[in-house]
Amino acid sequence: MTELVRADGRAADQLRPITIERGWSSHAEGSALISFGGTKVLCTASFTNGVPRWLVGKGKGWITAEYAMLPRATNSRNDRESVKGKIGGRTHEISRLIGRALRAVVDTKALGENTIVIDCDVLQADGGTRTAAITGAYVALADAIEWGRAKKFIGQKATPLLDSVAAVSVGIVDGEPLLDLAYVEDVRAETDMNVVVTGRGLFVEVQGTAEGAPFDKRELDALLELGVNGCAALRGHQLAALEPVASE
Amino acid sequence: MTELVRADGRAADQLRPITIERGWSSHAEGSALISFGGTKVLCTASFTNGVPRWLVGKGKGWITAEYAMLPRATNSRNDRESVKGKIGGRTHEISRLIGRALRAVVDTKALGENTIVIDCDVLQADGGTRTAAITGAYVALADAIEWGRAKKFIGQKATPLLDSVAAVSVGIVDGEPLLDLAYVEDVRAETDMNVVVTGRGLFVEVQGTAEGAPFDKRELDALLELGVNGCAALRGHQLAALEPVASE
Amino acid sequence: MTELVRADGRAADQLRPITIERGWSSHAEGSALISFGGTKVLCTASFTNGVPRWLVGKGKGWITAEYAMLPRATNSRNDRESVKGKIGGRTHEISRLIGRALRAVVDTKALGENTIVIDCDVLQADGGTRTAAITGAYVALADAIEWGRAKKFIGQKATPLLDSVAAVSVGIVDGEPLLDLAYVEDVRAETDMNVVVTGRGLFVEVQGTAEGAPFDKRELDALLELGVNGCAALRGHQLAALEPVASE
Amino acid sequence: MTELVRADGRAADQLRPITIERGWSSHAEGSALISFGGTKVLCTASFTNGVPRWLVGKGKGWITAEYAMLPRATNSRNDRESVKGKIGGRTHEISRLIGRALRAVVDTKALGENTIVIDCDVLQADGGTRTAAITGAYVALADAIEWGRAKKFIGQKATPLLDSVAAVSVGIVDGEPLLDLAYVEDVRAETDMNVVVTGRGLFVEVQGTAEGAPFDKRELDALLELGVNGCAALRGHQLAALEPVASE
Amino acid sequence: MTELVRADGRAADQLRPITIERGWSSHAEGSALISFGGTKVLCTASFTNGVPRWLVGKGKGWITAEYAMLPRATNSRNDRESVKGKIGGRTHEISRLIGRALRAVVDTKALGENTIVIDCDVLQADGGTRTAAITGAYVALADAIEWGRAKKFIGQKATPLLDSVAAVSVGIVDGEPLLDLAYVEDVRAETDMNVVVTGRGLFVEVQGTAEGAPFDKRELDALLELGVNGCAALRGHQLAALEPVASE
Amino acid sequence: MTELVRADGRAADQLRPITIERGWSSHAEGSALISFGGTKVLCTASFTNGVPRWLVGKGKGWITAEYAMLPRATNSRNDRESVKGKIGGRTHEISRLIGRALRAVVDTKALGENTIVIDCDVLQADGGTRTAAITGAYVALADAIEWGRAKKFIGQKATPLLDSVAAVSVGIVDGEPLLDLAYVEDVRAETDMNVVVTGRGLFVEVQGTAEGAPFDKRELDALLELGVNGCAALRGHQLAALEPVASE
Repeated sequence: MTELVRADGRAADQLRPITIERGWSSHAEGSALISFGGTKVLCTASFTNGVPRWLVGKGKGWITAEYAMLPRATNSRNDRESVKGKIGGRTHEISRLIGRALRAVVDTKALGENTIVIDCDVLQADGGTRTAAITGAYVALADAIEWGRAKKFIGQKATPLLDSVAAVSVGIVDGEPLLDLAYVEDVRAETDMNVVVTGRGLFVEVQGTAEGAPFDKRELDALLELGVNGCAALRGHQLAALEPVASE
Repeated sequence: MTELVRADGRAADQLRPITIERGWSSHAEGSALISFGGTKVLCTASFTNGVPRWLVGKGKGWITAEYAMLPRATNSRNDRESVKGKIGGRTHEISRLIGRALRAVVDTKALGENTIVIDCDVLQADGGTRTAAITGAYVALADAIEWGRAKKFIGQKATPLLDSVAAVSVGIVDGEPLLDLAYVEDVRAETDMNVVVTGRGLFVEVQGTAEGAPFDKRELDALLELGVNGCAALRGHQLAALEPVASE
Repeated sequence: MTELVRADGRAADQLRPITIERGWSSHAEGSALISFGGTKVLCTASFTNGVPRWLVGKGKGWITAEYAMLPRATNSRNDRESVKGKIGGRTHEISRLIGRALRAVVDTKALGENTIVIDCDVLQADGGTRTAAITGAYVALADAIEWGRAKKFIGQKATPLLDSVAAVSVGIVDGEPLLDLAYVEDVRAETDMNVVVTGRGLFVEVQGTAEGAPFDKRELDALLELGVNGCAALRGHQLAALEPVASE
Repeated sequence: MTELVRADGRAADQLRPITIERGWSSHAEGSALISFGGTKVLCTASFTNGVPRWLVGKGKGWITAEYAMLPRATNSRNDRESVKGKIGGRTHEISRLIGRALRAVVDTKALGENTIVIDCDVLQADGGTRTAAITGAYVALADAIEWGRAKKFIGQKATPLLDSVAAVSVGIVDGEPLLDLAYVEDVRAETDMNVVVTGRGLFVEVQGTAEGAPFDKRELDALLELGVNGCAALRGHQLAALEPVASE
Repeated sequence: MTELVRADGRAADQLRPITIERGWSSHAEGSALISFGGTKVLCTASFTNGVPRWLVGKGKGWITAEYAMLPRATNSRNDRESVKGKIGGRTHEISRLIGRALRAVVDTKALGENTIVIDCDVLQADGGTRTAAITGAYVALADAIEWGRAKKFIGQKATPLLDSVAAVSVGIVDGEPLLDLAYVEDVRAETDMNVVVTGRGLFVEVQGTAEGAPFDKRELDALLELGVNGCAALRGHQLAALEPVASE
Repeated sequence: MTELVRADGRAADQLRPITIERGWSSHAEGSALISFGGTKVLCTASFTNGVPRWLVGKGKGWITAEYAMLPRATNSRNDRESVKGKIGGRTHEISRLIGRALRAVVDTKALGENTIVIDCDVLQADGGTRTAAITGAYVALADAIEWGRAKKFIGQKATPLLDSVAAVSVGIVDGEPLLDLAYVEDVRAETDMNVVVTGRGLFVEVQGTAEGAPFDKRELDALLELGVNGCAALRGHQLAALEPVASE
């Protein structure tokens, strides 16, 4: 797409190295340690029978997510939210985004009256933590659903997963649309966008923000295209990570 | 745009009745009681000299916003966040959105080392509270900046306001893209989007969420067009409300 | 009573202009936007079936109240209690006062096992916010009880309201007893008293505090007389606001 | 005054047995363990140089108070406010009352830029804890002021204490006005009043509440007379407790 | 054991004067005001039927403890934890220690489905508050169990108390092992240890911490010996305080 | 020492497999991902210039620690302390233990006015998390001190580290003293002890608790011997992990 050489030598439309260590946790019903370059997020999915009180008896399941960052995941240490006694706005916002993204690809009726809690803990941050979290959380979720099926908490013919979902950040840096911003790029971006896309290429969430100058429709379209393509590539990584399950 | 008749008889691309009572508060440096149909938001702008500690000595001002809802603004009563002792994720998220939207049209250097705190309190809610808040907050902000200039806290030649900003919700209901959703429409929307647009027609924020089915690029484009046009109409209301200032 | 001319030209025993916009809120079962001069309080009454757990099965209803102030209701901005994460002593104290005042004129047995929550939110403050809150809350309460009767949650022959209730502040400024203190008078008062009186002229609450010098019995009596008369005048405003109901 | 025999055999206008153990704490600059019958309150006064930030440089001192109850001070155990993570409305209200009562008899200019924090901890409760707290706190305060004078933090000729202050509860039980209500009387009272009176017999605070039926002026007057006389008797106990100081 | 003369003239292996005022509280089912020299702790035991939800139906009782300090128990005033809105680490740690110590000598099956909450409130602190708390709490606990037996909430043949328990601090000051450190000794101690011992001389808890230099096995043994002997002496005080019960 | 075969086949005096990934974090000044069998703890050391206010100007540094657990580190999910809004007693207690253990081997004068914050986050728990945390934290601390020296924040001749420190759990299971308890052993232990020992073999902390029956001196001695030997073996792992530094 462009000749620009990025700090780490990537092309404008190139993802950072992606790794997904599926099953990292020996306790959780599903888990993945995902890395987008220097960003490392541990995603676990905890399966429990039953649903929150407001859902009881409706024949539906529930999926919720919590996002957090270790205090020294970043370049300088941040105080723990548990010590401050309250959760910051950014944390809340990202937790809600992850939950919405996953619920968008789940048929909660097919899930039955079961709850899956997704925890995304950023062990190391280098930009794009929320998009790595969503992408890894999908892998953990898929395994937790398989676990529920194996335990017969989910009907054998039920297919709670309607599609896969992945997310990536895109942004305009020095007038150039770039895929999967690292932290040094993110702080310089004029416009920053997170795109959540299903395996079929449909949008679940589009969140674009002018950090510097407002942006026009042409720029928006360029970013969306980059994002859709990036999510398609991430879907490949997800499928590869989940492959052994497919063969079972 | 469409033949669909909405609950309140509006056309698909029509705003609800918009009123802006500028200067509602006798204490605040700027204020507006804005209504988008049954949604009523009191926006005040509080001007103070000085900036938060982390900005001191950088020759820049600061703009921040807080959003809240009265407990009985909605159809059934919600517990107060002050009583619960913590602010919910939704409140945090909207407060951050309002702050970003306003900062996007302010030259903080021209503002000088002054802080403007915007409070948006929803007195009555009927859908679109965050977009009404942004639209009304701009009016309060403009007056607070004029106040600062009159008091010589802001240089006489400085023009901290780079542009105006307004916001509106759009969404797809029964397959139809609609402008400025009332609550009964909002709960039925398959896709819900908030669009924040400057007076010049550039995007400051685009937040689209698939509440039901994921959406495609064509739907996204239709929503964006509705939103840009709606914000242009809201800009007319803002200009009318602020007119006396222009004549001073 | 006296020749003294007050800042706003009132006589010592004269109320500020009183307005009561009954039914301001389209959602609440009862509501009133009341103003005592520059003091504006939005009072809503939320009716729900059932009572708190500790009252279940006793055949009685419950009435409780919460008072709060918007951050820029006052001359300089106050931090939100929701942001501070705790409710201040003054807020608690006034909430409790409002609840007691209303319960004093309600026969909770006649109310049946229903709960009415009163919210008094100060939109603008200029002295006497707690007394305006009680006076407006009575109007909201009366409508909520009518609503409950119309919905048959309250027996058709039951008369939960035993009397009306209103409140007013009185104080000694420069040795002179004054009725309904505005903020500029309140800060100068040597003695400050809030008087809550029923429509029949009986006391529900008397709270007098020496802010400057302690006071004697003669001064106390003068203040009480002013307060009783002020509440009688406020009762007239309440009756006028509620008139249409009486005619239904 | 009356023939009524109370649960503990007292006359209607008789205080419970009053004891004041001055200097109970070996650490505090002033302290008193006061009992009004079964109500026992440990009052300490902590003297420190300097004042809160908002008072610095105004040449005035500051007096503040905090009231609390041990969890098993009452007949059944209450959860600790530290465990609940917030202070209840009643605690706040009483702390504020005690602080106002003491400030009313102190010339804060004569105190110099010093702060005295009064802690009133109820070790055992049997009605009237707030009035016992005020009465005991005065003794602790007097000693802390003497301590400050001895240490030359307060000028040798300064007389920060303008008067003494004491408090007592009064109430109407079965139509009869009674002095110094014990818990069993308090719960049956139709009207409950706390009266704070200076040594010279002037009112600092009058807080009367109709718990049952509203009350009239005649009842109010009877309660005030009982309260003034009760406080005069309490002043005698305070003087006796402080006597050694007078002789120094 | 040693010639060293301590600040208060005690021998190295000598306790401070110990007093136990059993039944100090008229409300609690068991209580003791214990003093170890200048350290005074009010211990109450509150007996209630039933157990926490997680224990229901297991045929076992529950014992838990809370420790706290009055703000002016110490030489300079500490802010209240209720005002700070959270409980400090030290408070939590000591509460947990007291609970474990008491549970170690109770047969919770014999207790039946009853809960005893122990409150240990430090009225005055001079070192060793947690050990005084445990020692006094045992007395309060023993009486609460007797109360439960008298009320038939505990079976007449059940013996929930398996043994007594006491605690004492020991430490190395200037190279010398000392028993029952007063505050001035505690701050100078190189090693500080709390020992909780049953009436039969067995260990329930051993917590040794190098405050200055790390310590070796020989020093550890010397401290343990001192502690075991100190607890034996404390057991004598407990038995004496409880004597009337034994005779019933 | 014994013939007993443990669940994982270890001898009674054998550690689980120990791994230390030094430098796991790319941001922290020192870090180690340590595992004791299935227990995995990420330890980071954050170096900053300056000290807390209460230490300023005393020529000393400060070391503090915070311990936390990811919600799904355990077999069933625990709520986040940040969500609950308060830190539990266990977390506080362990954080304080880790801080004390590290400070015991640091000469804070040699550290200069610098602060090192240690974060120990349990990614997966299988018993002994606090002892793994201390053992790994020492490695992170050593590297952070080297970093401070390289940056000249610490004097070139200063030797802040006086010794190394490691920790291990020991306990009596079925009457048998065992080293380094896994979770399944820990829940069955009659006595549980954590031992913190320096490289020279001296005790920094000994915390023994009777979970079931109280223990005697002979059992205590057996546990201490196991613990001292276990810590000596852990010291070997620490030295191996830190080796490259030694060779620089």
